[in-house]
Amino acid sequence: MVRQVTAFSNPTVKRLRSLREKKGRRTEALFLAEGLRILVEARDSGRLPEIIAFSPEGARHPLAAEIIAATEAAGGEVIETTRDILSKMSGKDNPQMVLGAYRESDPALTRIDRPKADLWIVAQALRDPGNIGTILRTGDAVGAGGLILIDESADPFSVEAVRASMGAIFTQEVVAARWPEFVAWLRRGDGQLVGTSLKATHDYLEAEYRKPCFLLIGNEQQGLPAEYEAECDLLVKIPMAGRADSLNAAIAAAVMAFQVRASWR
Amino acid sequence: MVRQVTAFSNPTVKRLRSLREKKGRRTEALFLAEGLRILVEARDSGRLPEIIAFSPEGARHPLAAEIIAATEAAGGEVIETTRDILSKMSGKDNPQMVLGAYRESDPALTRIDRPKADLWIVAQALRDPGNIGTILRTGDAVGAGGLILIDESADPFSVEAVRASMGAIFTQEVVAARWPEFVAWLRRGDGQLVGTSLKATHDYLEAEYRKPCFLLIGNEQQGLPAEYEAECDLLVKIPMAGRADSLNAAIAAAVMAFQVRASWR
Repeated sequence: MVRQVTAFSNPTVKRLRSLREKKGRRTEALFLAEGLRILVEARDSGRLPEIIAFSPEGARHPLAAEIIAATEAAGGEVIETTRDILSKMSGKDNPQMVLGAYRESDPALTRIDRPKADLWIVAQALRDPGNIGTILRTGDAVGAGGLILIDESADPFSVEAVRASMGAIFTQEVVAARWPEFVAWLRRGDGQLVGTSLKATHDYLEAEYRKPCFLLIGNEQQGLPAEYEAECDLLVKIPMAGRADSLNAAIAAAVMAFQVRASWR
Repeated sequence: MVRQVTAFSNPTVKRLRSLREKKGRRTEALFLAEGLRILVEARDSGRLPEIIAFSPEGARHPLAAEIIAATEAAGGEVIETTRDILSKMSGKDNPQMVLGAYRESDPALTRIDRPKADLWIVAQALRDPGNIGTILRTGDAVGAGGLILIDESADPFSVEAVRASMGAIFTQEVVAARWPEFVAWLRRGDGQLVGTSLKATHDYLEAEYRKPCFLLIGNEQQGLPAEYEAECDLLVKIPMAGRADSLNAAIAAAVMAFQVRASWR
C-alpha cells in the first residue's frame, strides 16, 4: 500500500534520513540509493529496496512505476512524499525524485565465490568513499568479481560511495576483512596477489598476470605497508613520467585492472 | 617582512578566505593551495605564492621556512597566523599549517606549446572539480603536456581541483576554450584528435595513436556530443564487461592516456 507522507517527523522519513550517517546505517543495516537509474540497475541485478520513497513526478516514469509496484508486491514500504522531504532525505537542494533503502550485503570474506571471476580488487584502508564507489564502477566495467576492503576503510554503503559506484554497488560483491584474515583465506585457494610499488622492478606492462588475479591497491596517503608488499606474489611498477610519484588510488586500480585484462586477450 | 595576524577581520585573511569561492578567485585572479607538499611542488616547478600564510608550527619545517623566505625575498605577502584562522581560510577543522595564494595562469589556448609534449588531454564540460584535479594528476604521471578544458567546465583553480591535482596544477598547462576555437587551433598544426565512444568500432587496445595525440574526454553525464565525435580523427571503444556502459571521466582519461603511452613503447 502506498502511503502519503508529508510530515518531516514521520518515522520512515526519519529512518531514511538517518541512513545518511554511518550510525544510522549500522543500526538499520540499510543504505540509500538515489535516482531512477541506480534503482533500475539494482532491480536488473535482482535487488529491490526495502523502502522506496518518491515524489508524484518521480512515480510518473514507467520504470519507476514498475519498481514501486515490485517493491510493494515484495512487501516493501512504499511512500509518496514531497520534493522538500526528498530533499531533506538526500541532503541535496535538487533531490532525485525516487530513492530506495536497500539491505546491506553481508561483509564476510567467505561470501566471495573465487571461481566466479578472474579478477578481484583488494583495497587497503581507503579513506575516500568516492574512491571506493569509483573502484566498484571500474570493477564492473572490467568484469571483476568484486571489491575486498582491507582494514579500516571508508564505508562502501555511504551515499557518496553508492553514488560514485553508479549502480556497481549492486553488481560487485563488497566484503571486508582484516589483512591476516584475508591472507589466510587467499592462500587456501588459487590466486595471484599483485601489488603496485615504486620499488618494484617489473614494469606493469610486461608482467605476467595469472587467474584469478587479486589486485592490491594501497591507501591514498601511504600506499601499501611494507609487509603487505612482501606478501605479494608479484609487485609491479607503473612508471611515472612527471614529477608526481603516485596516482590517485582509483586511477591506479583502473590502470592496473585494465592492463591485467588487456594482458589476457 | 613577516606580519603577525590574529584577527579574522584582517584584510589579507578576508582576501584568502574569498579564494574559496569562484567569485573571489575571479576578482583576485589568485587561487589557494594548501599544505607543504603542494607548496614544495609549486616551488620546484618555479612558482612561489603571492601570499603565504602559516602557523608557528608550520614555519618550523625547514622546507616551509625556505618557501616563506623565498616568498618574502620575491616581494610576496607573508603572514604568520593562528590555527583557527588557517582553519577558517581552508574551510577545514584540521587545516594544513601552511597555505599559499598563487596567481592563476592565463587560460589562453595559444599558450599551448604543441611540440612540448606528445600527449594532451582535452576535456569537455567537466562538472566535477575533483575529476579535473585527478586528470591533471594523471596527466603529470603519463607525461602529458596539459589539460585543455572545453566549453563550460568546473574551475580548475577551485580548492577541490587543486587538492586532487596533488601539485599537478603547477606542472600541467591548464587552458580553456570553446569548441570551435579549439578545433580551429588544433587544425592549424599537427595533432590526432582521439575520442572514446561506445559506437566506435576500433578497440582502444588495437588503435594506432599518433603524436601529438589530443585525447578528448566527454562530460560526466552525457559523454561527447555527436558533432564532437564527428570531428575526431580516431574514435575508439573501451569494451565494457559488466552492466555499466561508461567509466568515470577521470578513469576513462587515465585508461586511455596510459594505453596511448603504452602503444608508443
